[in-house]
Amino acid sequence: MRPLVNTFPLAQWLQSYQRSTFISDLLAGVIVAIMLVPQGMAYAFLAGLPPQYGLYASILPLMLYALLGSSRSLAVGPVAIVSLLVGSTIGQFAEQGTDTYINAAVNLSLLVGILLLLLRALQLGSIVNFISHSVTSGFTSAAALMIAVSQIKYFSGLDIPRELHIWEVFGFLANHTNEISQITLLVGFTSLFVLWFTKGKLCCLLQSLRIPTWIAQPICKAGPMFALIVGSLMVWGWQLDTNAGVSTVGSIPTGLPDLCAIRIDIALWQDLFVPALLIALIGFLESVSVGTVLASKRRERIDPNKELIALGVANLGSAISGTYPVAGGFGRSMVNHSAGAQTTIASLISAFLVLLSLLFLTPLFYYLPKATLGAVIVMAVIPLIDFSSFRQCWRFNKADALTLLATFVLVLVLGVELGILSGIGISIALLLYRSSQPHIAVVGRVGNSEHFRNIERHDVTTYNDTLALRIDESLYFANTRYVEEFVLAQCVEQKSLRHVVLICNAVNFIDASALETLENLVFKLRDEEITLHLAEVKGPVMDQLLNTAFIEHLGEGQVFFTTDQAIRALSGKQHTTVN
Amino acid sequence: MRPLVNTFPLAQWLQSYQRSTFISDLLAGVIVAIMLVPQGMAYAFLAGLPPQYGLYASILPLMLYALLGSSRSLAVGPVAIVSLLVGSTIGQFAEQGTDTYINAAVNLSLLVGILLLLLRALQLGSIVNFISHSVTSGFTSAAALMIAVSQIKYFSGLDIPRELHIWEVFGFLANHTNEISQITLLVGFTSLFVLWFTKGKLCCLLQSLRIPTWIAQPICKAGPMFALIVGSLMVWGWQLDTNAGVSTVGSIPTGLPDLCAIRIDIALWQDLFVPALLIALIGFLESVSVGTVLASKRRERIDPNKELIALGVANLGSAISGTYPVAGGFGRSMVNHSAGAQTTIASLISAFLVLLSLLFLTPLFYYLPKATLGAVIVMAVIPLIDFSSFRQCWRFNKADALTLLATFVLVLVLGVELGILSGIGISIALLLYRSSQPHIAVVGRVGNSEHFRNIERHDVTTYNDTLALRIDESLYFANTRYVEEFVLAQCVEQKSLRHVVLICNAVNFIDASALETLENLVFKLRDEEITLHLAEVKGPVMDQLLNTAFIEHLGEGQVFFTTDQAIRALSGKQHTTVN
Repeated sequence: MRPLVNTFPLAQWLQSYQRSTFISDLLAGVIVAIMLVPQGMAYAFLAGLPPQYGLYASILPLMLYALLGSSRSLAVGPVAIVSLLVGSTIGQFAEQGTDTYINAAVNLSLLVGILLLLLRALQLGSIVNFISHSVTSGFTSAAALMIAVSQIKYFSGLDIPRELHIWEVFGFLANHTNEISQITLLVGFTSLFVLWFTKGKLCCLLQSLRIPTWIAQPICKAGPMFALIVGSLMVWGWQLDTNAGVSTVGSIPTGLPDLCAIRIDIALWQDLFVPALLIALIGFLESVSVGTVLASKRRERIDPNKELIALGVANLGSAISGTYPVAGGFGRSMVNHSAGAQTTIASLISAFLVLLSLLFLTPLFYYLPKATLGAVIVMAVIPLIDFSSFRQCWRFNKADALTLLATFVLVLVLGVELGILSGIGISIALLLYRSSQPHIAVVGRVGNSEHFRNIERHDVTTYNDTLALRIDESLYFANTRYVEEFVLAQCVEQKSLRHVVLICNAVNFIDASALETLENLVFKLRDEEITLHLAEVKGPVMDQLLNTAFIEHLGEGQVFFTTDQAIRALSGKQHTTVN
Repeated sequence: MRPLVNTFPLAQWLQSYQRSTFISDLLAGVIVAIMLVPQGMAYAFLAGLPPQYGLYASILPLMLYALLGSSRSLAVGPVAIVSLLVGSTIGQFAEQGTDTYINAAVNLSLLVGILLLLLRALQLGSIVNFISHSVTSGFTSAAALMIAVSQIKYFSGLDIPRELHIWEVFGFLANHTNEISQITLLVGFTSLFVLWFTKGKLCCLLQSLRIPTWIAQPICKAGPMFALIVGSLMVWGWQLDTNAGVSTVGSIPTGLPDLCAIRIDIALWQDLFVPALLIALIGFLESVSVGTVLASKRRERIDPNKELIALGVANLGSAISGTYPVAGGFGRSMVNHSAGAQTTIASLISAFLVLLSLLFLTPLFYYLPKATLGAVIVMAVIPLIDFSSFRQCWRFNKADALTLLATFVLVLVLGVELGILSGIGISIALLLYRSSQPHIAVVGRVGNSEHFRNIERHDVTTYNDTLALRIDESLYFANTRYVEEFVLAQCVEQKSLRHVVLICNAVNFIDASALETLENLVFKLRDEEITLHLAEVKGPVMDQLLNTAFIEHLGEGQVFFTTDQAIRALSGKQHTTVN
């Protein structure tokens, strides 16, 4: 039993599964399914695929995640940002609507699945940490804005070319104002109104009427479903599709996807590799972030390694279902959690309901206007556009805030893939730049204590013949020359110096370049009759140094346990008080 | 006078210039010129250019460096590694020996010059620090090996295709053993012998005979010139060029290069940009390294900013002279220094002598065998192949040693450009990886002192209700989740915990991602009734934190000046002693 429980978190949860737990899961599963059907179709459009592919991505992948996932309430399936990435990636290789396009999407799912499992096998899941919060935040806002703007074509009924930049879309609109279909616009805004009303007003109303939660909650979350119904009724009732040219979903093939029809295309994989890695990392990052937040509300943890496997296998499930990559989405997961999902049984129920609608409800979607699906997407992504992050960031750290802004702008200008890669590059470059010019403090004794602090910040005592420098950074190739220059410049200023003590309590490692520079520094200082000493060297660093001849080369220089001991041993009686 | 002296270091040196200084400079200038003429021609071949282009690169660039350079004894001109880079870069765009090829070399010089001046203007000279010692060392060894192997074609007289990999050259040789020209081989090995004999034996002999230095030294350094004379006499005496097919330099156009005949090709610049940046950085790195070593022997410093300008202008001089990029070379600079060069007047003398030989001596080079030039190159690059660096590195830091090895292998496999870029990438990736999994120590009190050290390394006292953790790294996006996991895992182990103190004396900055993680950690710990405190927060970090609401969010948590104060304030009386 033990290995089963270890591999499948669900098996563990089922050990204490009760009737009440099931009822919670059932309710959550139904609510998520009600959101998932319209969102799935809408996101498929975003990815450039026919709407049923969004539903295909909402069955097998959910079931597989339910078996393997370590988050009780993460709702896996088609998500906005991954759909955008898929659309912009495959758009470069294939014409929308062709078999080549769909096949590329399937290969992408397969590749994403394999990459996630590979990251797990190589224990490289932590690579995702290199996408900093600023980059994620800038990227998400820009992507959400791009997604919202991309829906203008469904609202306006105009055939806006996909490759237009976001600002070009508005130019295009201005040039084609008189071609905008006002009926389509009306349908779109009606759908937006239904969504806004259900989410905002209806919910409050039901609460104030003291309707029982199990009735009120599904109604509150059914906004997308209501919008679908209202939109479809408008088109059907007034025959807007034939009379006013309102574009609709049309006929969707009933029934299940054709499992196992993947044509593996290795040549294509070379082109898809970088986008697939980005999709895998961003999907994983979003899933783990949401999963962690939800788990901590229950004082539980999720296991990132298990998530890599579960999401990897879920994407293999996408590939087998002949559709495009999935991830754990922010919006539906929140709903799933607040609707009371106790285990991934809720996801199994959602998947089953999507399956039923694919089998029996597709004829009902015939009159569903695309403008309504556009409204569903717009309402889902608007909360992702987040300007408060920038303000907070700006107050704390200008460099992070600028990274956020740069990523935001670059994603809009260069596109999602290049934009996020540039953002990651910038955040790493700033990090390196920062550590290449480390803070070095001249320190002195605080009162009569054993503590030494920066002479520029504290009232401390310093000594004429002994200079104590605290290096606030590990020593490595990019900053070693800077440190050397700093020390030598200090020595030029103070003619009476005999000893320099480098306080290494913030030096966490020393690399080979830095060791060489330190050795040179010893000899250069010796030429000026100054002895170099070290103090507060950390254990791991000391172990490293003992493997080399450095300690011998120090000559008369010593390695002191504390700065206090160093100063007592070295400095003469005469001293000056600074500041 | 002041601005003149500031801009032109030479102006300052001339203020105290004496007859004896001039004699030193004259001797050094003559010795360097004796090496420079054969090396210049040999390196031009290496760069895929006719031999006179090496001499063109040894006149105007030297004069410009002499005016602007801050190193007294750096010998600028054609150098081995830059020549290799030029050859491998331009070989991708043009056929050797064509006008297109030469024009690309000239554009490359122009671009290198502009980039160096741009780096100065943007104050980005320190970017060169990101090429770590391991990368430089691995690259230099591999490049030297490639250069040595590339000379096999001149020794064997075989037409070995330039694009062959180093191991393919030996396969080629094995397949064409019977086509090797034995006479050419004989000329080559005779030249090698002359070089070895002059450098090794003759020098010792002259010293033991107590010949005056001013006579002995030029003779010792004239090995390349002797090799040229011996090689040329062999070919001329036995008519080896017509009788045995020994390949010679042939007729070199007498006279000066055609100044100012650059055809600027902006389309080409896009392709040349990355190689030009590499050539600029590597040339600058080599020059500054050699310059620093030589200056420190006189207890002087060079000014990297002045060097950027001087090398930039020297490369513009190369472009104007219609030839390829230059740098400060290791070998000739050492010779220049040990021959007694006092100022860059020595370089002016060298340049003048090269000019004279270009005007009057080129007919003498008609019979000069290419095998002799190959021997000159081989002897110059063999000292650059350096295995001891790897051994030293391995003892100190395995990661650095592996970077060195990887760069060495990748340069051989992928070529110089991609190889060194990969090396730089690897060294940065390792750095990031290292700091993404920081060392965190649980610390306890040493005896009754105020000092706290790692419980695994020292005999210290710890407390049941208070956990003190020292984080040995700055907190930023790539390691923040690791730190959070570590702290939470520690809390799970110790059920009686009430306080966690993070000792931040090695935390040199906190970025926005890390701040968010810390805030989350405060709340997560609070859920478990544990309060988070900070101690020994550095001034700059504290300033940052005070800009945010973090200190408020700490709630009952405090920021202590020292760990000692924190423990005294927080921990109860009961304590345990841990080994």
